[in-house]
Amino acid sequence: MEFQEVAKKRRTIRRYKQVQVLDKDLTNMIDTARRVSCGANVQLLRYIVIQNKNIVKDVFETTAWGGFVTPRRTPEFGKNAPLTFIAVTALGDSTEIIHANAGAAIQAMQYAAWDVGLGCCWIGAFNKQKASEILEIPTESTLLYLLAVGYPDEAPVQDDIDMSGSAKYYLDDNDVLHVPKYKVESITEWR
Amino acid sequence: MEFQEVAKKRRTIRRYKQVQVLDKDLTNMIDTARRVSCGANVQLLRYIVIQNKNIVKDVFETTAWGGFVTPRRTPEFGKNAPLTFIAVTALGDSTEIIHANAGAAIQAMQYAAWDVGLGCCWIGAFNKQKASEILEIPTESTLLYLLAVGYPDEAPVQDDIDMSGSAKYYLDDNDVLHVPKYKVESITEWR
Repeated sequence: MEFQEVAKKRRTIRRYKQVQVLDKDLTNMIDTARRVSCGANVQLLRYIVIQNKNIVKDVFETTAWGGFVTPRRTPEFGKNAPLTFIAVTALGDSTEIIHANAGAAIQAMQYAAWDVGLGCCWIGAFNKQKASEILEIPTESTLLYLLAVGYPDEAPVQDDIDMSGSAKYYLDDNDVLHVPKYKVESITEWR
Repeated sequence: MEFQEVAKKRRTIRRYKQVQVLDKDLTNMIDTARRVSCGANVQLLRYIVIQNKNIVKDVFETTAWGGFVTPRRTPEFGKNAPLTFIAVTALGDSTEIIHANAGAAIQAMQYAAWDVGLGCCWIGAFNKQKASEILEIPTESTLLYLLAVGYPDEAPVQDDIDMSGSAKYYLDDNDVLHVPKYKVESITEWR
């Protein structure tokens, strides 16, 4: 798919078809992530692909979903929850720069997923201590984020808004999720 | 360009042709950035496009470039330095999550740039206090990163390495920059 099409159409997905994601697509997502920019090229990010049903369930139970559209966009395990997570961890402590690196890597993975028909949800709201225990993250590493991956079972849309509009996402009468985003001119200055 | 081509070929650029970047390409970069994932969709990132020669020069003087390949990849102003910067700022304080959001937005901008033949350098190593003064960043905001943007005047390459290899980037005898990146299997666990 053309980059611009991926970038314009990609949206966060919170409901998934119960179809297993292919290993090669997951490998390709991480292959995309490893190529992104990284301060001093130190490459401290590591990835755990979670597909074992019991571990997926345990990890899923540590997560919170779409605060403004609860409970309708809180997936149900076995019905529309993701079958795969990618955990993003860092060697060492949680620092601002490693979070920036993780953000870049996760955005890259989301594009690579969308490019082959997969959707993702980048999850920062989860019980990190519990998830770290489930995943047996060694003490010298830090679990930063989870990325849910799967085939989309919803089709959210983006609404463009001015600075005066509300950025709160919402479900309309047809159960379609609307995600308001500020227009370029609202968030850009030229010097 | 196909997403996979952008993702595989994009590299950080530290030498630029002295050709002005088009406003429409810069607008499109920020249009791409505003669409990325953002925790709770709060959208606290703002962008300052810097093209005025005096301000570009002042900002350039606050930056440090490619520590491992100094001085050969430190651009000279007026010769091969960028003619444009995009400053990424946040409403509010510097937090881990805003750095993650900024990383995602900056990676998106880098892909959008590469898609139209432009290269970027994501700069975290700069005098933030001085650059904030130059850009008159209000006290309630935080300057997070700079992104240099311009037409590439070098062609760096990626080398794939195992975990035992050195991740230190280097210049070869032909003045080509090599960027070693760990292979997927070195950084991935499957559960």
